[in-house]
Amino acid sequence: MHNPQLNRNGALQHLLTIDGLPREILSDILDTAAPFTEVAEREVKKLPLLRGKSVFNLFFENSTRTRTTFEIAAKRLSADVINLNIGTSSASKGESLLDTVDNLCAMQADMFVVRHAVSGAPFLIAQHLAANGRDHIHVINAGDGRHAHPTQGLLDMYTIRHYKKDFTRLIVAIVGDVLHSRVARSQIGALTTLGVPEIRVIGPKTLIPADVDRLGVRVFHDMRAGLKDVDVVMMLRLQSERMQGALLPSPQEFFKYYGLTADKLCCARPDAIVMHPGPMNRGVEIDSAVADGQHAVILPQVTFGIAVRMAVMSMLAGT
Amino acid sequence: MHNPQLNRNGALQHLLTIDGLPREILSDILDTAAPFTEVAEREVKKLPLLRGKSVFNLFFENSTRTRTTFEIAAKRLSADVINLNIGTSSASKGESLLDTVDNLCAMQADMFVVRHAVSGAPFLIAQHLAANGRDHIHVINAGDGRHAHPTQGLLDMYTIRHYKKDFTRLIVAIVGDVLHSRVARSQIGALTTLGVPEIRVIGPKTLIPADVDRLGVRVFHDMRAGLKDVDVVMMLRLQSERMQGALLPSPQEFFKYYGLTADKLCCARPDAIVMHPGPMNRGVEIDSAVADGQHAVILPQVTFGIAVRMAVMSMLAGT
Amino acid sequence: MHNPQLNRNGALQHLLTIDGLPREILSDILDTAAPFTEVAEREVKKLPLLRGKSVFNLFFENSTRTRTTFEIAAKRLSADVINLNIGTSSASKGESLLDTVDNLCAMQADMFVVRHAVSGAPFLIAQHLAANGRDHIHVINAGDGRHAHPTQGLLDMYTIRHYKKDFTRLIVAIVGDVLHSRVARSQIGALTTLGVPEIRVIGPKTLIPADVDRLGVRVFHDMRAGLKDVDVVMMLRLQSERMQGALLPSPQEFFKYYGLTADKLCCARPDAIVMHPGPMNRGVEIDSAVADGQHAVILPQVTFGIAVRMAVMSMLAGT
Repeated sequence: MHNPQLNRNGALQHLLTIDGLPREILSDILDTAAPFTEVAEREVKKLPLLRGKSVFNLFFENSTRTRTTFEIAAKRLSADVINLNIGTSSASKGESLLDTVDNLCAMQADMFVVRHAVSGAPFLIAQHLAANGRDHIHVINAGDGRHAHPTQGLLDMYTIRHYKKDFTRLIVAIVGDVLHSRVARSQIGALTTLGVPEIRVIGPKTLIPADVDRLGVRVFHDMRAGLKDVDVVMMLRLQSERMQGALLPSPQEFFKYYGLTADKLCCARPDAIVMHPGPMNRGVEIDSAVADGQHAVILPQVTFGIAVRMAVMSMLAGT
Repeated sequence: MHNPQLNRNGALQHLLTIDGLPREILSDILDTAAPFTEVAEREVKKLPLLRGKSVFNLFFENSTRTRTTFEIAAKRLSADVINLNIGTSSASKGESLLDTVDNLCAMQADMFVVRHAVSGAPFLIAQHLAANGRDHIHVINAGDGRHAHPTQGLLDMYTIRHYKKDFTRLIVAIVGDVLHSRVARSQIGALTTLGVPEIRVIGPKTLIPADVDRLGVRVFHDMRAGLKDVDVVMMLRLQSERMQGALLPSPQEFFKYYGLTADKLCCARPDAIVMHPGPMNRGVEIDSAVADGQHAVILPQVTFGIAVRMAVMSMLAGT
Repeated sequence: MHNPQLNRNGALQHLLTIDGLPREILSDILDTAAPFTEVAEREVKKLPLLRGKSVFNLFFENSTRTRTTFEIAAKRLSADVINLNIGTSSASKGESLLDTVDNLCAMQADMFVVRHAVSGAPFLIAQHLAANGRDHIHVINAGDGRHAHPTQGLLDMYTIRHYKKDFTRLIVAIVGDVLHSRVARSQIGALTTLGVPEIRVIGPKTLIPADVDRLGVRVFHDMRAGLKDVDVVMMLRLQSERMQGALLPSPQEFFKYYGLTADKLCCARPDAIVMHPGPMNRGVEIDSAVADGQHAVILPQVTFGIAVRMAVMSMLAGT
């Protein structure tokens, strides 16, 4: 099947998911992001790459944090940014998602950054654009339901490459609520594509999907065993608001078994890095001493996230 | 009586309504808008005409869609745009409309784009500015109660001129809920001013104002008869949220008699255009086959709407 | 104790409160603001002083009015402005104030404009930045609980200097709800620092803090007596939403005794100026005839407020 994210020349047309993205595209995005991290160090943090372009932050679900990262990235590229919180507006007048998109296209949008509670919504938009000959408009998935959040996955890959250089010698552990995570499955795919030889998944049985071993990962229910000799610890946020009460006894009990403490982290390699997508539940999935400790690269992840989003936007705009 | 929208030299000072706007001003706006439609095709969709000007989107009533069109127009003219949703803020601290306006004037506003649930609010603001010697500040009505929504009327005129060139040979039908429409009455006036020889109004008795024939239009309650040989079909949105239940039996029944279907559209001229201000109630006032069909110019209306708003803003800023 | 607002060279690092700011810094801010009032008169109201800088309006408490003044000031200095209403977002995901700040720092913020219901929140942020070696990021307090609102205090000083030139010959009266005012105490300090020889406080016993006379002011409960021969009348907003019902009989009764009317104002000097921080409760603390009369400088205060905020931002950015 044709990858709907790539155009006929194999260049990135939309960023909908990192699942199935070829290694060259992944590497290309990470390479493009690198110089953008330096832009942020400058006196004038501004490049003219998207000047005169209209970027719409189309948020059908509220997420100030994610919206902010895209807004900054677009503004640093000199785009005109329009924030639309759709939840409370046109939808209430009964307009459909695609009618809303058609209208914004007619306003000469250049790029949509889409956040939606329903999985697949950004795909639907991309498909609709293609079906209507609007190939000059690009879609970036900023999180759709439980499905994907590709810029998060990309910034994670960027972070690992930044600190570890070579993917092909790493042991990476993904810890926590894999079942409800928007990114865990995609991370496994991207890590595999980039050549990571050993990927582990650590968590209680109730939060690990039954079929996860098909992805070629090793499953651990004991955290110390799972962390043994790992180079990279990717913590997941405990999505307590998405979980059924029955799946989990209590935050305290979760922390006891799967919360990352300095003590458990000792099982990992001495130069292991600790990642977290934020916002953190301190004392639930991660102890403050680790979150603020020397292994944590959680704040650099945020910094790299801006650069990665600038990279994606500039690559799409150049397509 | 002096037209409060024109200054002493007869130039546009505010855009409050298209009622009573002289033909030359109407034509001037449409002429000015034309080149702005081309700006949107450029690589860099940006002109410096409002650079350093402060445009305030003063929305006392939420309307993301309308706010977005003005925000884009202003940003493409390089203005600084400040969005104010007043419903939830100062008003709750008990500040009056005119105190709010005075404060924003003191912040050196250059232009107010005003949306208000109360008819006449933008007039009140314009009057207040004049009474206080603030003739350098301009007001654009972005919809006031049931009264006016002049940029919508203007973009409709632009659309008709774009597709039909000559107003003086046209039959134009306005279909649907004329009674609650913000624009129908003004459209009739503007079409008359621009020389349209025959204007028809089509709808159920309960949704056509009793005195509408005084405006020189022909009233039809049978849609097929009304559509016969028309060049332009202007559909109105069924304002279901504004209507008393008693006026209308059901959306299904409305659609049966007054919903625009391909079948009914056959009565019109073969090259008739179909317009709708959006957002559409598909299956109520318009069938999807027509909305997405070859006669529809509904999305071009949106595109022209940006150009018309840029035209109005640049004309006001130049006054 | 070291003043946390000044850096080692004695330059302004943050603006958290005007309490304890040395006279030279106060004067420096006012001097810097002066030319910015002229920028607003220009055709293009824009300076490149903050170009490429990211200013975050970090509002944990809604205040459209205050947010707008900072947004305009930052945009006129060409900054990229990001508005964050935090009340409804990350906080609900359980992220702490300082985690939010750390994240925004990681996005390469240059300046935080902070509004928070809790007194001291901006101090806490400034302290946290210092403890983490982020001295290049600046904090402006845009109102924290009952504590401080320094740009309001500064624009008041600017206004007095603009109209009265010399602080050292003035009698200044502060009238109304001193107890709940965010600015009264700071104003007394700033006026003293700038050399005002006589400061009076006028209000009912229930709204004057018991210890206010320690600040070197004269307390009056009779308004006419208190206004006698004053040069400057600084009205306070009656914070009715913050008051216990028991403290105050009724707005009508308050107006009778402490509402500023033309009649009471006759006790002041003929060239007295009347100030109010807005939004006004007309008919409660001030009569409309005075609010709109020739002694009022309430709207110029707003204009000067933009210039003062531009001055503070440009001074911080230059540190």
